[in-house]
Amino acid sequence: MPPDAARRSERSRLAVLEAALELVVAVGYGRLTVEAVASRAGVGKQTIYRWWESKGALLFDAFVELGPVAVVGGVRRGEVVDDLTDELLAAVAEVCERRFDQVCRALVHEGRTDLVMLLLAPRRVAVEERLAVARRLGEVRRDLDLGMAVELLLGPLYQRWLLRTAPLTPDFVETLVDVALGAFR
Amino acid sequence: MPPDAARRSERSRLAVLEAALELVVAVGYGRLTVEAVASRAGVGKQTIYRWWESKGALLFDAFVELGPVAVVGGVRRGEVVDDLTDELLAAVAEVCERRFDQVCRALVHEGRTDLVMLLLAPRRVAVEERLAVARRLGEVRRDLDLGMAVELLLGPLYQRWLLRTAPLTPDFVETLVDVALGAFR
Repeated sequence: MPPDAARRSERSRLAVLEAALELVVAVGYGRLTVEAVASRAGVGKQTIYRWWESKGALLFDAFVELGPVAVVGGVRRGEVVDDLTDELLAAVAEVCERRFDQVCRALVHEGRTDLVMLLLAPRRVAVEERLAVARRLGEVRRDLDLGMAVELLLGPLYQRWLLRTAPLTPDFVETLVDVALGAFR
Repeated sequence: MPPDAARRSERSRLAVLEAALELVVAVGYGRLTVEAVASRAGVGKQTIYRWWESKGALLFDAFVELGPVAVVGGVRRGEVVDDLTDELLAAVAEVCERRFDQVCRALVHEGRTDLVMLLLAPRRVAVEERLAVARRLGEVRRDLDLGMAVELLLGPLYQRWLLRTAPLTPDFVETLVDVALGAFR
């Protein structure tokens, strides 16, 4: 591709990503159409179909490139109960953020749970890292299964989010951390 | 409605419910169309649209009326660890059963997580009842928050199912029950 065409193509690509994110926030993934994204980005519908196989794939790229950067790996200097509570409160804020929520629901909708897992992975890693430190420091059992511990902390939270079974309140997070930590000691 | 018309109408309704369940098992909810259900049931598409507002609503009615009855509330005579393991293994079998899985995914897809919760409720109640017995018998702490305990047991399991993060093996269930029970004692 000659340099000018490559620049135009890159501008179009970014315009599509931005339009997709703006629209999913405005109308929700259920009513998001490729036509509307194309029109807002000033490109043809065929351009979008050529570059992305589905709305979900487009939204995933848009979120990874332009979405808010996940807050992970803060300095850990507190008690394990406080650090885990902070981490889970951050997880709640993350999944309740409308872009993140709508992009993930679009991906679940299309059966692309592998991509949802990628978006959730940084939080999972952060929780697991804090638990690994806790295990070294003796704040939790030496033989704790870290993977299972992470699922015990984040599983109930993500279930409430995905199935909207009950509100994700700070009280819920505190009780969850308290009860789970009881199992880890 | 005269008696004959009422009988015909009820026959049509049952034919639609049966056709919907057979087709969702055969082709999956993503490719299930109202046209195909109507054709298999020998009714007009408009009849289906008149009776149900969406594929999900139709599938929910079909599952509730014709789906397998959930196995709940068996006699509890074992150790709490064994009974909870049995209950969670039954939960795994339930969500892995193709009808149940496809109907729930159709409902998640349509944002009807309230109906998914109704389908999951009997299992939740069974687990909570066993934990209530355990609390009376002193097998778990007297001040255990039963609702949170249920979420700690079922949340990780339903997360694995919905997000397909990892296989729902018997090993996973056993470790989950072991770790969670540690928190309840």
